[in-house]
Parts: sequence; C-alpha cells; structure tokens
Amino acid sequence: MLLNKRLSAALGARTCQALRYRKHGEPTEVVKLEQVDLPTVGEHDVLVKILASPINPSDINMIQGTYAILPDLPAVGGNEGVGQIMEIGSKVKSLKLGDWILPKDAGLGTWRTEAVVAEDAVISLAKDIPLLCAATLGVNPCTAWRMLSDFEELKPGDSVIQNAANSGVGQAVIQIAASRGIKTINVIRDRPEFTQLSDRLKAIGATHVIREEELRRPEMKELFKTCQKPKLALNGVGGKSATELLRHLHYGGSMVTYGGMAKQPVIVPVSALIFKDVKVKGFWITQWKKNHSNDVRAFRTMLDELCGLIRKGKLTAPVCAELGLQDYRKALNAALQPFTSAKQVLIM
Amino acid sequence: MLLNKRLSAALGARTCQALRYRKHGEPTEVVKLEQVDLPTVGEHDVLVKILASPINPSDINMIQGTYAILPDLPAVGGNEGVGQIMEIGSKVKSLKLGDWILPKDAGLGTWRTEAVVAEDAVISLAKDIPLLCAATLGVNPCTAWRMLSDFEELKPGDSVIQNAANSGVGQAVIQIAASRGIKTINVIRDRPEFTQLSDRLKAIGATHVIREEELRRPEMKELFKTCQKPKLALNGVGGKSATELLRHLHYGGSMVTYGGMAKQPVIVPVSALIFKDVKVKGFWITQWKKNHSNDVRAFRTMLDELCGLIRKGKLTAPVCAELGLQDYRKALNAALQPFTSAKQVLIM
Repeated sequence: MLLNKRLSAALGARTCQALRYRKHGEPTEVVKLEQVDLPTVGEHDVLVKILASPINPSDINMIQGTYAILPDLPAVGGNEGVGQIMEIGSKVKSLKLGDWILPKDAGLGTWRTEAVVAEDAVISLAKDIPLLCAATLGVNPCTAWRMLSDFEELKPGDSVIQNAANSGVGQAVIQIAASRGIKTINVIRDRPEFTQLSDRLKAIGATHVIREEELRRPEMKELFKTCQKPKLALNGVGGKSATELLRHLHYGGSMVTYGGMAKQPVIVPVSALIFKDVKVKGFWITQWKKNHSNDVRAFRTMLDELCGLIRKGKLTAPVCAELGLQDYRKALNAALQPFTSAKQVLIM
Repeated sequence: MLLNKRLSAALGARTCQALRYRKHGEPTEVVKLEQVDLPTVGEHDVLVKILASPINPSDINMIQGTYAILPDLPAVGGNEGVGQIMEIGSKVKSLKLGDWILPKDAGLGTWRTEAVVAEDAVISLAKDIPLLCAATLGVNPCTAWRMLSDFEELKPGDSVIQNAANSGVGQAVIQIAASRGIKTINVIRDRPEFTQLSDRLKAIGATHVIREEELRRPEMKELFKTCQKPKLALNGVGGKSATELLRHLHYGGSMVTYGGMAKQPVIVPVSALIFKDVKVKGFWITQWKKNHSNDVRAFRTMLDELCGLIRKGKLTAPVCAELGLQDYRKALNAALQPFTSAKQVLIM
C-alpha cells in the first residue's frame, strides 16, 4: 500500500477521499475515511465530483454483509447520490461538463469526494432541483414511481393502500399518487403523535391515514363508501400488516412487497389467491435498474416526471440531516438508530 | 308441492330424478333423491340425459354452505359430468342430437338423470373417449392444463414442481407435462406405501417423486444437477409445504395455488418476493370458465388437446368407484372420508 501511494504520488496520480471498508461488519467499526487513488479518465469515462450522498438502510446492510448483493472488498460505501461532471473522456456523447448525474445502478460507491466512472454507469439530471431532492431521488421516489406504474393500471379516482406510509417510499407514494389523482389509504403504527403525523401526511396529499389496528374494524366499511377498494397494495412491512392490506384489496388486485421492516414473512390466505385472484409480487429498484441498463429511455421518462413534480413543489425531499464526509461516524451512528426520523446525507 | 306434482302430471310435464338439497348442512342429511319437474325445451335449449357425474370436494363444500359460490335453494348437487343431447330446440346451432356435452360452468346441478339447459351452458365433446374420462374431464384436467399454460412459458426440458402430486389435479399435471416434454418434481407426504405410489406416478410420467421432508435436504442439490430449477410451482396444499416449493423456484418464477388441503395460509418470505422476484398467484377453474363463457374457442382448444391425450393413452381417468343414483348416500359417505383413494362417480 505504502509503495502504491508513493508510486501514485511519483506518477502524479490523483486521489480522492472515500469511506471504505475492507471487511464486512458493524459500519462504525469497519468503515474508514481513506485516501483512494483515482484511475485516469478513459475515452468513455467521466470524472465526477460527488455533491451529496445519503445513507440508506441497504447501504448499512451491504456493509454488514447481509444484503442480497455485496461488492468485492475493499469497497467504498454508498449507492445513491448526485454528482457533477468535472472531466470528460474524448468519446463521451451523452454527458457534458457541469452536468449533474445519478448512478444508473447500485454499487457505484458514492460516499467519496470524486469518482471516475464509465459514461454508461450514470444518467444526467436536471440541475434546477434542490440538491437534497437530487441526492435522494434515485431510490425511494423511483421505487414509488415504478410500483405505481408497473403493476396495475391506475386511473384517477382509483385507490392504493400502503403500510409504512411514513417511510421514504411511503411519502413518495403519497405525493406521486396525489399528482395522478389516485387516492391513498395510508396505514401507520399507532403512536402518541399520531394526529400530527396524520396531518403532515395529509398535507402532502394523503387521502386517508389510519392506524394499523383500524384495518380490522367495521369503520373501514365507512371509508369504502367514498373510496374505491384499492387495486394495488404496497407493502414495506410484511407479517400481519401485509395480510391486513390483502383483506381490503380489490378482486384481482396486486400486493407489491418492497420491504420487510417487521422481519416477518408475508402470509397469504389461500382463499384470497383462489377466490379473490390477488397477486402477490415483489419489487426491487436495484433489479429494475439492472434490467433496464440498456434502455435509458425508461429511466429518463421516470426522472423527467419526478423532476417535474419537484419543480411544482409536489414531490419534496425527506427530512434530512446534512453532515460532512469527516463526520461519517456520527452519520453512520444516527443511521443505525431504529426509527430515525431524518435521513443522513453526506455533503462533500 | 303435492298440488304442483298433480298439476305437472295433469299437464303431462316431464320429470327427472335428482339429488336435491333444500338447506345447507351435512350432505348425507340434507341431500335427498327427488322427482323434479323438467321445464319444456325452449328454442335455444337442449334436453340432456346425464350419463355420469363425479362427487368432487367442491360439491361437498357447496352443500355444506362453505364454498365461495353457493346456488339458490333448493338446488340440485353436482357441478361436473358428461351428458348426451336427447332433444334439441329449433334455434340451437352448436349442438346436435346424440352429442356428448360438458357443462361450460359450475352450478348446473349434474346429479340428476336429465336436465333442460340453454345451448350456451354446455359445450360438445368427442364421444370416442371413455365415459369416466369424459365425466371427470371438466375440472381437474382442465385446472392442470390451464396452470401449465397460462402462467409461465414452459419449453420442453423446463421443469415444474408440485405438491399434492397424487391428487386428481396432480396426476393430470404429471401426464399433461410429460406429453409436452416438461419435467415434473412431484412432492407427496411420506407414507408406508411410498415406493408403490412413487412407482405408479413415475409410470404415468412423473420425472421425480420426493417426500415433503426431502425438500429441505442437501440431496435436492443433486436433483438440480440434472433438472432445471422449476419456473412454475403448483400448490394444492398451503402452509409449510407451499413455502418449501418457493425455496426451489427459479428466479422470477410463479407459484400458483389452486387448493389448500392443509387449511393453512401460504407463507412467503419477503426476500423471495424482493430479491428472487417470485410471483404468488391463484387459479380457480370456475372463474376461468366464467371469464371465458363467451369465448368457446379457448375451451375448445383445451378440450381438443385433452381428448387427444386421452385417445393416445397419455391422460387417464382417476381411480373411480361407480355407483347408481339411488346409492347416493353410500357415494356421499365415501366422498366425505379423508384420504379417499377413489373418486365417487354417479352413473345414471
């Protein structure tokens, strides 16, 4: 390593700062702020200055070694974020100096000051949206957008039911659905500040906000007098909560699972499958991006609509805590707390 | 009632014998053999002599009042069977005297000697197949055929995994899959006569027959060295058995539930939905028939292929016990026993 560094210095190779881990384990123990060499910018590459990058639960699981995909080690943490093009290879066509970009796929390692990446690995983004919106656009709002678009044909007046309605995905679902005239039935766990949270979710467009326990009560019949039975249920929790969503699903509807906060499986009554023809599926934005890596148009259409909503104030960034790269321990610690209300975002 | 009968007789109205129930309850108590009036044969109707009609589990549940669809009472039992056209209305086009027919939908009430039905309610069937094959063709083989055709695109060499492999649907799945060059991994509960049953299922085309407990063992890896991971899992059981099928499903594959013998829900790990993209769906032949009641071609294509297989000896009737209509108590009693090995068929 020392030799490498000396060699780099002798050759005038550039370096950047990066949050890197050499083995899987607890993030606060294995992640270190290191000086990392930057490769030269090839014909088809760009040099990107990372502007801001959030700490997502999947980043944490990836470092812990428990996630479904794991990078080769040593690896730089982080999968989401916004960067700006500072240098450009001679054969790069789709990007220009100064462009903002998002990673097209997971695994880029965004917790760093700079990165040299292939043109194909990133997609440009409008620069007239707030930095924190851009930094947190690629995972949660994209997940919400796809789930509202790819599983059931929803028309204005149709409804969607979701649990974890207060999560990043949940809030994006509320806002995107509202912009399309789709009603949302939002389920959250009971809590002392239920009314405040309910008001906040309604302020961003939620049609109904109900406690998980209410799903089993006769009052639900009242709700469905003015609201269609949902064709789509979005499940970020699993366990009993998911079963309750199924109970209210329209005949032939779909439940899409994107998370499992309760760490319990999805339990589906046989009768719901046979006699109610419900479909139980899953969604993973990382896989969607991989499947569409050669089809930029689909990604572009989604980003254009999302940026349009942001400009109109119809899609807002989650509550964020902004920290410098050197404060990474504090940021990781905060991200590791259960029920953190603010998303930790590293500002480079 | 007495007046009606006298009136019928006076008007020379025809009657038939039928197994009718006036209230829901235990089949052996509520079902009675009765003389039932036959309406006159209208322009668009046919008079059908029922030749043979099986007692299916769904018939029993319908009488008990626990099934998903229930007829108006009083009702004649039975939903499946083969009949022959004895009289024909002047405007009937798709049927002729002497034709064999199957009900196009559930709810006909097939446990009777004769019935007057609308032309649209029945579909003609080749007469050169064995009577017991014809009588039991409309539910189980049709369920098997559709599940192998409508959910995943299966090519020769692909594989399907199923539990309840010894059931009526299970045996039809084995035979139809074998005729298409599709391998079947057949799961049955352990039992003293496992080897005999395994041999019997292999004799009709099963590729692999395994005990439910074996699904968790490392030996399964050996099996998948020579057999592709299944794209399709067929679940007639539910509970743990269904979860075990999911474990072996190919990435992106579908599990289709058509029954719930274990009376337990289907339990789906969240990771299977998100990271393995499995789809969990249901199938109900009654609903399929309802959805396709105006599209005879789809039904015809299926019946043609099934009859072709029967003629070639590639699709056989289940083991049947044949009884006369007057022996209905004995037949119902036998059908009510758990684990009956023979299907009870009423011969009129």
